[in-house]
Amino acid sequence: MTEEAKKVLKRAVGKIADNYEKSDILMLKDQTPLPDRNAVIGIIKGLRGVMFPGYFEGKLTAGAEPDYYIGSALTDLYEKLYEQVVLALSYKKKKITGAVRERAEEICDRYFAKLPEVQRTLLKDVEAGYNGDPAAKSMEEIICSYPGFLAIFVYRIAHGLYVENVPFIPRIMTEYAHGETGIDINSGAEIGEYFFIDHGTGVVIGETTVIGDNVKLYQGVTLGALSLKSGQKLAGKKRHPTVGNGVTIYANATILGGNTVIGDGSVVGGNTFITSSVGENTKVSAKAQELDIKTGKMTDIEYYI
Amino acid sequence: MTEEAKKVLKRAVGKIADNYEKSDILMLKDQTPLPDRNAVIGIIKGLRGVMFPGYFEGKLTAGAEPDYYIGSALTDLYEKLYEQVVLALSYKKKKITGAVRERAEEICDRYFAKLPEVQRTLLKDVEAGYNGDPAAKSMEEIICSYPGFLAIFVYRIAHGLYVENVPFIPRIMTEYAHGETGIDINSGAEIGEYFFIDHGTGVVIGETTVIGDNVKLYQGVTLGALSLKSGQKLAGKKRHPTVGNGVTIYANATILGGNTVIGDGSVVGGNTFITSSVGENTKVSAKAQELDIKTGKMTDIEYYI
Amino acid sequence: MTEEAKKVLKRAVGKIADNYEKSDILMLKDQTPLPDRNAVIGIIKGLRGVMFPGYFEGKLTAGAEPDYYIGSALTDLYEKLYEQVVLALSYKKKKITGAVRERAEEICDRYFAKLPEVQRTLLKDVEAGYNGDPAAKSMEEIICSYPGFLAIFVYRIAHGLYVENVPFIPRIMTEYAHGETGIDINSGAEIGEYFFIDHGTGVVIGETTVIGDNVKLYQGVTLGALSLKSGQKLAGKKRHPTVGNGVTIYANATILGGNTVIGDGSVVGGNTFITSSVGENTKVSAKAQELDIKTGKMTDIEYYI
Repeated sequence: MTEEAKKVLKRAVGKIADNYEKSDILMLKDQTPLPDRNAVIGIIKGLRGVMFPGYFEGKLTAGAEPDYYIGSALTDLYEKLYEQVVLALSYKKKKITGAVRERAEEICDRYFAKLPEVQRTLLKDVEAGYNGDPAAKSMEEIICSYPGFLAIFVYRIAHGLYVENVPFIPRIMTEYAHGETGIDINSGAEIGEYFFIDHGTGVVIGETTVIGDNVKLYQGVTLGALSLKSGQKLAGKKRHPTVGNGVTIYANATILGGNTVIGDGSVVGGNTFITSSVGENTKVSAKAQELDIKTGKMTDIEYYI
Repeated sequence: MTEEAKKVLKRAVGKIADNYEKSDILMLKDQTPLPDRNAVIGIIKGLRGVMFPGYFEGKLTAGAEPDYYIGSALTDLYEKLYEQVVLALSYKKKKITGAVRERAEEICDRYFAKLPEVQRTLLKDVEAGYNGDPAAKSMEEIICSYPGFLAIFVYRIAHGLYVENVPFIPRIMTEYAHGETGIDINSGAEIGEYFFIDHGTGVVIGETTVIGDNVKLYQGVTLGALSLKSGQKLAGKKRHPTVGNGVTIYANATILGGNTVIGDGSVVGGNTFITSSVGENTKVSAKAQELDIKTGKMTDIEYYI
Repeated sequence: MTEEAKKVLKRAVGKIADNYEKSDILMLKDQTPLPDRNAVIGIIKGLRGVMFPGYFEGKLTAGAEPDYYIGSALTDLYEKLYEQVVLALSYKKKKITGAVRERAEEICDRYFAKLPEVQRTLLKDVEAGYNGDPAAKSMEEIICSYPGFLAIFVYRIAHGLYVENVPFIPRIMTEYAHGETGIDINSGAEIGEYFFIDHGTGVVIGETTVIGDNVKLYQGVTLGALSLKSGQKLAGKKRHPTVGNGVTIYANATILGGNTVIGDGSVVGGNTFITSSVGENTKVSAKAQELDIKTGKMTDIEYYI
């Protein structure tokens, strides 16, 4: 390294240290660490292995009692989740307290008690995927390789921690799925049974979205909020749409606003931008027009959904 | 772990074991294992190293004969692919049969015989990318870092297994590319030469899509199916569009349906939703309108593509 | 392996070696290696650890002097970046020259001198994210898990190498972020302060885009180029839009062209396709229409943004 480079680095080090001093966000110091992203991802994969054994960790040992397998895996996952929940609840605290440990235990007890029900719900999502996609060759294929199913799986296990007001971990979970699949489901959303997302890249489902049963979304669908100036004052308020039962929403439709309701049985066409409610059994479509390059004639395009 | 936690886990274990019993999907048991995702990804990377040596595995040993390098790499890849094809063909079977092994050999023989041609086609895709994107600084940059090219590469090597009716592996391959790039090309699609996808996140190309030569797609383009109630009854039927030669499709256009044809030389504007055919040499665009906040006046927007 | 398979492979090896001979792109030979993707990703993560210590590498050692931590990390990163810049500048050369080494030193000196300022700009981006998203629970959450922030971070550190005309490395950096987040920001774009991208999957920001301060983009927004036949002749020309201060652009809007300007304070609705300029303080929205399935009546949809 040249002398010039050494001087450059010395000055940069001083200025970066100054930046740390002036901000209480840049450097995490004198406080308990944040939950560990890798540990949280390990918990996601562990829960997947318990719910769908044999799909992700190679062949199961022949003759092994499922009880033993689940028992040992769940015990391990309980300990790991408990540890991360303790860190999440200790956010911005100087040390971990007994009260926090107790609350983390209660949360984990309730969380693991609900897992079998979550597993049954996921099985319905697999069925919805198989019935909804003629390109699916088997239900097994959906479990082992459909990104829509991975995103729904992660959402359902994250939602159980969101309702317990655990900070950080639900977001780390759903952002893991977002990174893997391009599907961003906020863990606060309420989503019914038989839910299917096909392809899925670009799907966004906001924190206060409510979705009924038998709903099918395609890639690029946004169920989002209007961008208002109020910012953080809107935290906790209903800002995202309500989608009824049996609704189909085609690719790239953008549906915004907390008062926007899509009625039962409706079909929303692709590339629509919707900020007001749509009734029951209604079809909505974007307008497009066609220009013949030679004649210059322009005509509206017929659509059929 | 508290006594309460132990009780919670015991009950959960029992219920999850019950769930396994009631479903024949949740747990893979008493059958040959599914193909291994990591092994399949290793095959993708190995084939990439053979087709584009020096791009992904660091510097090649100086003076090494290409024949030796390719020969040893291809032999290894043959064995690995053969093993996974055997597992894929044994899906839902109790054991691997001699007939399955024989069929896997025939498939692999045909597959490897076609690889040099696939490599030549990929080189044309690289050229299309370089000529189609003024931001590309070199063809090498396209090979080593363009996600659109990675997705096309994986599609082309997966398609060779799709046409052999190998289950699981083509889907695992294209879902790997989908996860890496946000581009979801079903391995069943038929795609011509000089194909380029720019940026690419959100692109979906369905199983029965047919695409001509010299076609350029931007991010978010869907060539998809109409969502009909028939579900699995539509399996195998033509459900996705046909795109002619020399067509350009801008970002986020959604084109649906097995009877929908985009004629040669046409340009489809961004954010259009198209469910009926478009003639040759035609331009199609979405409608937008503009509201002046102060005057409240609303006017249609001119577009130029 | 069967005799037939051996024959197949032998023929394939010969043809692939022929392909290498006929193209000077397929195989990198007799030249210095390209920059190493994994090394570049390591530099991204290292810079992130220096700018936001404690967020990504677990708890910092209690009582450690920040100066020591930054000093040792920056020295290491300088050496690593220098090595990759040398390779990038030696592209297509037979060996590394002294002149290249000198130029790489000068580039790295200027680059590291600017890092503290980049860090301060990133802190403003974190604030913009927190104030712009009611679902954000804390600024820490944005730093450790928002994909929009990861993409902006990588863009800002890649831009510093783009302006030095370093080939390959800026593209490898932004394609890493693209792969992780679905957000594709070309390192050549010029982006102001307090920039926020919410959710972000599918966002594309082209090489010659100019963006003002306090701009907010949602997922799927394209700031792109028109696809003209001129291809590489357009390299270096302004081909992408200019976005004013205080602009909000909703999901999936596609805005194209080097002469297209979005005026200060304007709001662009979701799913619009825009190829001409929009004035200041203007709202733009796509048109949609609604079909009542029972009555067949079709009405335009009201929008509110």
